[in-house]
Amino acid sequence: MTEKRTIGFIGLGVMGKPMARNLLEAGYTLVVHNRSRESVQELAQAGAQPAHSPAQVARESDLIITCLPDSPDVELVALGEQGLIEGVQHGDIYADMSTIAPTVAVEVAEALAEKGVQCLDAPISGGDVGAQEGTLSIMVGGDAVVFDAVKPILEVLGRTIVLCGPNGAGQTVKACNQVQVALNLIGMAEALVLGQKAGVDPTIVLDVLSGGFAQSRVMDVRGPNIIRGIFEPGFRSELHYKDLNIVRETARAYQASLPGAALAHELFGAMQAQGWGDLDHSAVTRVIELLSAAEARSH
Amino acid sequence: MTEKRTIGFIGLGVMGKPMARNLLEAGYTLVVHNRSRESVQELAQAGAQPAHSPAQVARESDLIITCLPDSPDVELVALGEQGLIEGVQHGDIYADMSTIAPTVAVEVAEALAEKGVQCLDAPISGGDVGAQEGTLSIMVGGDAVVFDAVKPILEVLGRTIVLCGPNGAGQTVKACNQVQVALNLIGMAEALVLGQKAGVDPTIVLDVLSGGFAQSRVMDVRGPNIIRGIFEPGFRSELHYKDLNIVRETARAYQASLPGAALAHELFGAMQAQGWGDLDHSAVTRVIELLSAAEARSH
Repeated sequence: MTEKRTIGFIGLGVMGKPMARNLLEAGYTLVVHNRSRESVQELAQAGAQPAHSPAQVARESDLIITCLPDSPDVELVALGEQGLIEGVQHGDIYADMSTIAPTVAVEVAEALAEKGVQCLDAPISGGDVGAQEGTLSIMVGGDAVVFDAVKPILEVLGRTIVLCGPNGAGQTVKACNQVQVALNLIGMAEALVLGQKAGVDPTIVLDVLSGGFAQSRVMDVRGPNIIRGIFEPGFRSELHYKDLNIVRETARAYQASLPGAALAHELFGAMQAQGWGDLDHSAVTRVIELLSAAEARSH
Repeated sequence: MTEKRTIGFIGLGVMGKPMARNLLEAGYTLVVHNRSRESVQELAQAGAQPAHSPAQVARESDLIITCLPDSPDVELVALGEQGLIEGVQHGDIYADMSTIAPTVAVEVAEALAEKGVQCLDAPISGGDVGAQEGTLSIMVGGDAVVFDAVKPILEVLGRTIVLCGPNGAGQTVKACNQVQVALNLIGMAEALVLGQKAGVDPTIVLDVLSGGFAQSRVMDVRGPNIIRGIFEPGFRSELHYKDLNIVRETARAYQASLPGAALAHELFGAMQAQGWGDLDHSAVTRVIELLSAAEARSH
């Protein structure tokens, strides 16, 4: 791409807003839309053009990026009334950076392909700090030629950008990631609770485990805070719960049987039932503590 | 310790034999015993004195080390007929390096304390290679003064040697370790199966996950082999299954409720039912594949 595209950006939340800012700062022309208008005005003051619907964003840009909460939001913005599909032109590119079901990513891509639009699913990980610093990991599904065309723009947003396969593959790898992270967290939670119940200093458990075969990145990053009872996000448990719901839908769709993911979904659901949706996902430790307290009371 | 102790060593298996060899090579006088006599003869040729019972080992040494398969073996060797308890003298030290239930470690320590023997539980991790190279991790429970006295000898066997607390604490930390490793493995298994079922190259799943927040040591070490279908141990699944049994006993004893450990126990049990006890514990991936194949057939 020798000349810079006009980029449409929809979804200016905790992740989307700093990402849009980074694109503006990199010199791209931006058309922005968001359900709540406050963020739109903020971005407009920073030089973006405000738009009043996804359709308008699509009409005024040739690369559209969305960063939305869940599958139904993406379906609505892309294919609903006043959605992208009503404003796109042949040759446009649509990159959805939300975390949604791979099956929905494929459906949206197929619907927009009929309008001559090429789609990428490009979910991210790395949290709000990664979004602010432009150091996200981006897992991409779609055509290699489209990927190559958009890559310079993704490089403004992230550091590790991997083409994982055709449409849906980016979302699939994100789902895989969320299973692994959830089970690493549950393993740590159970190890720490077992140690504590048996009277061992959790600092020692963490030191020994993180120095050996049991080490994980979540242990390195979250372990010390868990021991101090600090569960500030980080990554809010309600989002990981949503992602585990996607994991289970995806497992059903592709006939995978994932008992660990099913358990993780239940335990992360218990966090929501306790009103801990705004806590970091490592607060699953508190669910294990709760179960163990109930176990103790029953004796 | 200015003069070198005579060390008794019982249990010359995959782990114990190379450990005993390392002690001989470090210049210690060794009295050895093993159920199968072949290993005893091997060690005798290398300079160790053979003994015919744990009691005899205890009579002829002042530090006794055992490295046995499971809790009942340790109970028998320590407290049974012709056991250590029949040969120990006041002031002896007994270090059990087997992986057994923390509660049994405490029982054995209490029984031998009545004879004036001080005990350490000192389970190891690091596999047969760690045993051969003297690079094991050793998690120790017991008195700090006893720990300090024995530490130079443990340093012949391992690299990371941590006093975790009083008797039983070493076994507790080992149990915590085995929970964490099992759940990290199950997470990886489910991530890889989900990716594969949804049509994504497992190499890409592994690359993306290991480069980010989902990383774990087991992923770094075992992931590439899982993808190639290589399940040579490593760490035999039947041993990890045994350890998860200890985890569940320990959880019950200390009133911890560990749903992840319970699931891991079931899935590792399925490996045994399939005759995969001699495979590496990462073969839990094959259990997830099996469940998913059954899921696919039911559609």
